[in-house]
Amino acid sequence: MVPRYARPAMSAIWEPEARYRIWFEIEAHATEKLGELGVVPESAARALWDWWKTDPRIDVEAIDAIEAVTKHDVIAFLTWVAEQVGDEARFMHQGMTSSDVLDTTLSVQLAKASDILLEDLDLLLAAIERRAREHKYTPTIGRSHGIHAEPVTFGLKLAQAHAEFARCRERLVNARREIATCAISGAVGTFANVSPEVEEHVAERLGLAIEPVSTQVIPRDRHAMYFATLAVIAGSIERLAVEIRHLQRTEVLEAEEYFSPGQKGSSAMPHKRNPILTENLTGQARMIRAYALPALENVALWHERDISHSSVERFIGPDATITLDFALARLTGVVDKLLVYPERMQKNLDRMGGLVHSQRVLLALTQAGVSREDAYRLVQRNAMKVWESDGALSLLDLLKDDPEVTSALTPDQLEEKFDLDYHFKHVDTIFARVFGE
Amino acid sequence: MVPRYARPAMSAIWEPEARYRIWFEIEAHATEKLGELGVVPESAARALWDWWKTDPRIDVEAIDAIEAVTKHDVIAFLTWVAEQVGDEARFMHQGMTSSDVLDTTLSVQLAKASDILLEDLDLLLAAIERRAREHKYTPTIGRSHGIHAEPVTFGLKLAQAHAEFARCRERLVNARREIATCAISGAVGTFANVSPEVEEHVAERLGLAIEPVSTQVIPRDRHAMYFATLAVIAGSIERLAVEIRHLQRTEVLEAEEYFSPGQKGSSAMPHKRNPILTENLTGQARMIRAYALPALENVALWHERDISHSSVERFIGPDATITLDFALARLTGVVDKLLVYPERMQKNLDRMGGLVHSQRVLLALTQAGVSREDAYRLVQRNAMKVWESDGALSLLDLLKDDPEVTSALTPDQLEEKFDLDYHFKHVDTIFARVFGE
Amino acid sequence: MVPRYARPAMSAIWEPEARYRIWFEIEAHATEKLGELGVVPESAARALWDWWKTDPRIDVEAIDAIEAVTKHDVIAFLTWVAEQVGDEARFMHQGMTSSDVLDTTLSVQLAKASDILLEDLDLLLAAIERRAREHKYTPTIGRSHGIHAEPVTFGLKLAQAHAEFARCRERLVNARREIATCAISGAVGTFANVSPEVEEHVAERLGLAIEPVSTQVIPRDRHAMYFATLAVIAGSIERLAVEIRHLQRTEVLEAEEYFSPGQKGSSAMPHKRNPILTENLTGQARMIRAYALPALENVALWHERDISHSSVERFIGPDATITLDFALARLTGVVDKLLVYPERMQKNLDRMGGLVHSQRVLLALTQAGVSREDAYRLVQRNAMKVWESDGALSLLDLLKDDPEVTSALTPDQLEEKFDLDYHFKHVDTIFARVFGE
Amino acid sequence: MVPRYARPAMSAIWEPEARYRIWFEIEAHATEKLGELGVVPESAARALWDWWKTDPRIDVEAIDAIEAVTKHDVIAFLTWVAEQVGDEARFMHQGMTSSDVLDTTLSVQLAKASDILLEDLDLLLAAIERRAREHKYTPTIGRSHGIHAEPVTFGLKLAQAHAEFARCRERLVNARREIATCAISGAVGTFANVSPEVEEHVAERLGLAIEPVSTQVIPRDRHAMYFATLAVIAGSIERLAVEIRHLQRTEVLEAEEYFSPGQKGSSAMPHKRNPILTENLTGQARMIRAYALPALENVALWHERDISHSSVERFIGPDATITLDFALARLTGVVDKLLVYPERMQKNLDRMGGLVHSQRVLLALTQAGVSREDAYRLVQRNAMKVWESDGALSLLDLLKDDPEVTSALTPDQLEEKFDLDYHFKHVDTIFARVFGE
Repeated sequence: MVPRYARPAMSAIWEPEARYRIWFEIEAHATEKLGELGVVPESAARALWDWWKTDPRIDVEAIDAIEAVTKHDVIAFLTWVAEQVGDEARFMHQGMTSSDVLDTTLSVQLAKASDILLEDLDLLLAAIERRAREHKYTPTIGRSHGIHAEPVTFGLKLAQAHAEFARCRERLVNARREIATCAISGAVGTFANVSPEVEEHVAERLGLAIEPVSTQVIPRDRHAMYFATLAVIAGSIERLAVEIRHLQRTEVLEAEEYFSPGQKGSSAMPHKRNPILTENLTGQARMIRAYALPALENVALWHERDISHSSVERFIGPDATITLDFALARLTGVVDKLLVYPERMQKNLDRMGGLVHSQRVLLALTQAGVSREDAYRLVQRNAMKVWESDGALSLLDLLKDDPEVTSALTPDQLEEKFDLDYHFKHVDTIFARVFGE
Repeated sequence: MVPRYARPAMSAIWEPEARYRIWFEIEAHATEKLGELGVVPESAARALWDWWKTDPRIDVEAIDAIEAVTKHDVIAFLTWVAEQVGDEARFMHQGMTSSDVLDTTLSVQLAKASDILLEDLDLLLAAIERRAREHKYTPTIGRSHGIHAEPVTFGLKLAQAHAEFARCRERLVNARREIATCAISGAVGTFANVSPEVEEHVAERLGLAIEPVSTQVIPRDRHAMYFATLAVIAGSIERLAVEIRHLQRTEVLEAEEYFSPGQKGSSAMPHKRNPILTENLTGQARMIRAYALPALENVALWHERDISHSSVERFIGPDATITLDFALARLTGVVDKLLVYPERMQKNLDRMGGLVHSQRVLLALTQAGVSREDAYRLVQRNAMKVWESDGALSLLDLLKDDPEVTSALTPDQLEEKFDLDYHFKHVDTIFARVFGE
Repeated sequence: MVPRYARPAMSAIWEPEARYRIWFEIEAHATEKLGELGVVPESAARALWDWWKTDPRIDVEAIDAIEAVTKHDVIAFLTWVAEQVGDEARFMHQGMTSSDVLDTTLSVQLAKASDILLEDLDLLLAAIERRAREHKYTPTIGRSHGIHAEPVTFGLKLAQAHAEFARCRERLVNARREIATCAISGAVGTFANVSPEVEEHVAERLGLAIEPVSTQVIPRDRHAMYFATLAVIAGSIERLAVEIRHLQRTEVLEAEEYFSPGQKGSSAMPHKRNPILTENLTGQARMIRAYALPALENVALWHERDISHSSVERFIGPDATITLDFALARLTGVVDKLLVYPERMQKNLDRMGGLVHSQRVLLALTQAGVSREDAYRLVQRNAMKVWESDGALSLLDLLKDDPEVTSALTPDQLEEKFDLDYHFKHVDTIFARVFGE
Repeated sequence: MVPRYARPAMSAIWEPEARYRIWFEIEAHATEKLGELGVVPESAARALWDWWKTDPRIDVEAIDAIEAVTKHDVIAFLTWVAEQVGDEARFMHQGMTSSDVLDTTLSVQLAKASDILLEDLDLLLAAIERRAREHKYTPTIGRSHGIHAEPVTFGLKLAQAHAEFARCRERLVNARREIATCAISGAVGTFANVSPEVEEHVAERLGLAIEPVSTQVIPRDRHAMYFATLAVIAGSIERLAVEIRHLQRTEVLEAEEYFSPGQKGSSAMPHKRNPILTENLTGQARMIRAYALPALENVALWHERDISHSSVERFIGPDATITLDFALARLTGVVDKLLVYPERMQKNLDRMGGLVHSQRVLLALTQAGVSREDAYRLVQRNAMKVWESDGALSLLDLLKDDPEVTSALTPDQLEEKFDLDYHFKHVDTIFARVFGE
């Protein structure tokens, strides 16, 4: 975790205090059910909850001090709670293992992290939609291979991004479901010393599903799927970031990351305004992708469990979620305040002297009875002049002056082929598909 | 693709002939709709389908020969078809781009590949379930960290595997849905020269969903998600493979990959029977995981599209699906014919002289009124003797001979604590969760 | 391996016949030494070499047919050789294991592959150097963040690429050394049944180093380092490919991949010339990178060896080397025939009306006694006009018309600050560093 | 970075204060040369060094406060230094860019980190060598595929690890050389405003090489190679960690991670002693491997530079080096204090009733004139009895009782074939190769 790429709400999930609070809730809910089942006195859970209602501070340092002696984090925590609550607390954790607490806690943390990420995505989707509608009919050149192809609108570019992030959202909902499970099954997962009813109760209270078969641990294919999904989302962030970096290139300059009025791009070079936020996002996307790999390697634990996954998760649990949260928020800001330059888009569109319309003229000539070979030759000889003039000449003008062309098509007919709107007749259809209007 | 790790049905999907068949169907369905819309004569599609009904051979060499001249694969194919069908074929492909055909074809191929993989998973799940039921109550030691922990059953191990692969199946159903889309939207995806109705028609005919916004290409976040899902499945394959490799270790030998009666493990060492199939699967899992990475990097295409994804997909399209198909089938065979040695499992369970029951004795002493500290001391002093004897002594015998112990618990009470069945009382619960019985 | 991305010489290394030839040489050299040591008759090696001198065809099908029965590739090969050579051949392989042959063969194959890759790099370096010298003083704009910064020369760009690939070459030399080792140490590597002198002899004959400690297999950290090095080279390929893709963008168009006179970029759009070779290289780079991962996971074999590395190497041995060979050759072709447009470079340099020289004017004003604050203000107010004119105005002209500026600097002094050559005074220094002139 | 996996010396390299100290030294050395060249007064560097000799505290908070205003880290630092040193400090940084400082600083940090890692490797190598010599002739079973193969010594296992980590050391020396370069070349790397002599001077003072061509930044193929090398080292750590985890398995138990006398493996199960340190190392190795990926993706920066690498390096710079330092130290501790159980090794060696010697008996029978087919049959029929007895019977005893066997070999001859030392005759050779004795 790099502090400058961390936001408070997400970071808080991974703080020791937050973890201990989840531990307590798991233990208290479990004790509650154990009491109901007659395994421990019903008074035990009551004592725990009564204390909890006082909204006690979690003394992380005190727990750490106990752990320094016991060398066991869960025992240290239970000891500290017992010191606060008194004798009744000794009934906590009956028949459970540390993994029951630790793994279910990770589920709660990842579920909470997912909720924040889903909100992030909602904000991003809203920002993209707003800008898409704003530029629904702003013409701009569509590019394949970085080369001008045919016209699109800037709104269409954003509609694509919206559809992509809407898919990411759906994937994240699935991924959240993957890891939102509760396992309280005791040593090697047989429930020998703790009834499945305890698991069911705790799961229900925490809003989790039960883990059908745990083997002391929750199986790590779930976490692999979770972090792989974050990696896919990172790819979509990178795509939009790269698009903006391209648009801000000096020669293109169709859009720019927002610059506040007084801001300096460079102390030495007043002309510099760099797309540093989207470059930064590109790097973050690389990291989030990388975190999926060790999660995938974590799946093949030995027998019922080994603990090789644990050190990995201490890194990627916080690092992947915190960085993705930051990246989504940063991207939302970039989209929200993106400076869009429709005039420049038009200028770029026009820079090839109307060559982007050559396909339509070709078709029109053919439909007017010119053979395909002749039509191609006619268009090409004029197009090449435009190309060689670097856009100084206009294809339409040249065609109007070419008698062979005008013998097949009138000036009006020719002009109609250079109509941008022809390309935009299905913008509505696409918007309806994406935004459901 | 490594031929020895390829099975015919999956390989066939990636053969040129199969690809051309899909191309034809896309073009013919599109022409059909174009005819209906009055863009081309209705006779065009009829001519195409009439020819198709003759079940014509696709002459891959002839098409290649044309491509060698035109340097364009789709044009080469269309030319060849026109040669077969005649004049009506010239109406094919009206307003479409090559990507419309290529990307939709990849969707069809991946969807078909998924169908095979789903069948593979069904067979694997069936094999696992059969063996799980067979060994539902076969006792074996549960291990955490590779160290004996408490008893489980071999059926429980397999029930876990079943639950894991059932999740994999569900993930693959989602992943299939991700990539089963059809895009026929023309240059840069605006539908300028081809109506969205054509896309809808072809999609419906091919059993695909429409791609809400394509930008000449289907967005690659879909494919990233697809290959990431295959990578997760590979992780689960590795987990079960590693489990079997562990069980076959000389010192453990609780299960073995099947050896046919006359088979030789080693020409020099008659005692060798190596888990080579599961080792082989371990390596294949590494490959399938690796293929997810370039798919993730493919997402960030430039602007409306670049073609950097294409070389990647020529590798991973076949390689990932063919290898996974092979791996699933191999794993199914391993599970199906796995030699399971319940006697050896019992022997291993017993090798620590009953130490695996120490926890229950401890609890029983406490419940009989012995203080926890004393109980721990009593159990430990006997357990240590067993430990030092390397399992030659029996914990139960020693406890029965320890007057301090017997003053709290009768021999019958002690014996009851060494009851394996105590650990298996929830096997039914877990099986019901997994197999729904 | 994708056939269209494979070149014959590299592919040949991975053909069965080539492998069998290496097997034979290892066995014959070993038999030679075993004869010298008196373990087998000296006539045995003579018989083998006599046959070999007849330049016999390796009958892959026949060997396959034997393997189908014996289920053991090395035994099948030895059997086939014995059929050809006669009785003396039975002394081959004395005290050796299959791994001795297989692992040393992989070393030979990777060493040969490296030799081809080193030649590829030499050709690439030569092409880059030639073009660098050609454009040593061709001015072009240097860009940071995709934004115009200050002038460089096109030769400098290529000098950087040269220095980078020269490093790649050195890395590959190291990587070749890593894997060019010979292990003939028998079961679990103890030399119990084969003297270390045999290993030394074979190593010397094959131009390999001895493997200091093998454990039946050559340790896989060597191969991990090898494939990781290929991955780094792939990164450098991607960098140069991406540079060219950027230069070919419509708005930049400072260079283009070669187009033959008659070639069509698009049948519909005559203006399209796409950088498809470098896009293709970008995808290939992703694949070569991906192949490093399973090689890294292969290191941790169990105990003296397991065979999980084997299936991985069947993929990545050919796939990584063949694809890298192809990519290097393709990149060499691209560089060699790259169309470079110095006029367009100059036009782009000038497109910001001389803003790229603002830093020098600022410094000159300060040195002429204007306070830094005032100097910044003076430059900025003129620069902003140029910026807003989208380069239609000239910074130099505006400065010459600004009395506050001209009171500090004469027109001649101002003009001197707009001198491109100022930026190129150390081009020689850098070329000397790179090309050693 | 996870605090519990961090050691102070390595962490200190990445603290803000350490970074600022390097910044200062770069600036002061550069100013020194600029003075010598007459670009700035010679007094400037003197003033800087005079202040530095007072061993001033770096006030990180104060610098942060300035950065909060200037939004530029290097300018904030220079401003703060100027406040401390006075007027002469304004001559710092003449003609330089921030990247000159930042990139050269990263080189210094990675070089320092490498020095610590090299020391770590030296300590690890020393520990491995000590234990290897201690167990040079401790017999243990060699295993291929996890299955007993033939005898080795525990010293040989460690000699292999030593050779592997010695290679890792050599790789790290190369990797350190890769990144130990200095770039002070100004905007886009042309040296337009700063002489190459300044770079040479600073490089020499800092013990770095000059970067032959920088383009404002040091090319990232260097860093890719560096982090890829760390990833390979992680693979070797994993290999040794996995070996130890295997040896500690309950059924094997030939070695154990050290347990202090009073330590508890599990509060509930007194028999549990888990290999948690090596499991933990396995997970850390996965992380270090993962960090190589984004470093590989960082290579392809756009044109002269973009800043996408920067966010990646903020993560992996500290995370990869700190974690590897921790892992190497932890592994050294594990090796140093590893509990080795030679009796158990012998017991495991013997557990198959001498089957591991079957190959030698087979050879002896052949050499005594028995046909290979008969010899195989004779050994096998006795071996199978031993196998079925699970090692309760002894192969030697059975052979001595088999008249067909004894008609070819005397009891003494047979016994000689069961001699462990036969396998160890080249231990000296291998040790000499590895330890140079």
